[in-house]
Amino acid sequence: MHQYQVLGFIAASLTTFSFVPQSIKTIRTKNTEGISLWMYIFFTVGLFLWEYYGICTLQWPIIISNIICITLVIPILYLKIKNSFQISKN
Amino acid sequence: MHQYQVLGFIAASLTTFSFVPQSIKTIRTKNTEGISLWMYIFFTVGLFLWEYYGICTLQWPIIISNIICITLVIPILYLKIKNSFQISKN
Repeated sequence: MHQYQVLGFIAASLTTFSFVPQSIKTIRTKNTEGISLWMYIFFTVGLFLWEYYGICTLQWPIIISNIICITLVIPILYLKIKNSFQISKN
Repeated sequence: MHQYQVLGFIAASLTTFSFVPQSIKTIRTKNTEGISLWMYIFFTVGLFLWEYYGICTLQWPIIISNIICITLVIPILYLKIKNSFQISKN
């Protein structure tokens, strides 16, 4: 089973940390044109539910990976909402 | 434990199906400007590793949710690569 745990750990790291380049790009360029607002709304709500699930079932890998992912995703969602409001204002 | 399984199921559905609006938006507009190529490369590789992990450990929720997510993410990655090549050509 140990080898599968390593595999799961690598898979979780890749899907979690994949949001690092997206977060850096969005914060740097402030360009959220091709990004879907609804994706980031659903995704963020989903991450918070995962976090709650992880806390309730005391699964540390879920708790930690979701805290990291929420931290990376929140700035993207914030900038997307901000840009969407500016577009609808103009 | 049953209520936590429902919570986990809702959380998994939200994070998986959040890629539906992104996939529809990207396929419709072909605009991948604000999207990070590296995010989708790492994310897709991570999803395939999750899929392999799910098959090895025979966990059907992981197998099914990752097949859905891969199906949604592949068109975004394809269009992002295509657009990146066109930009570097011009």
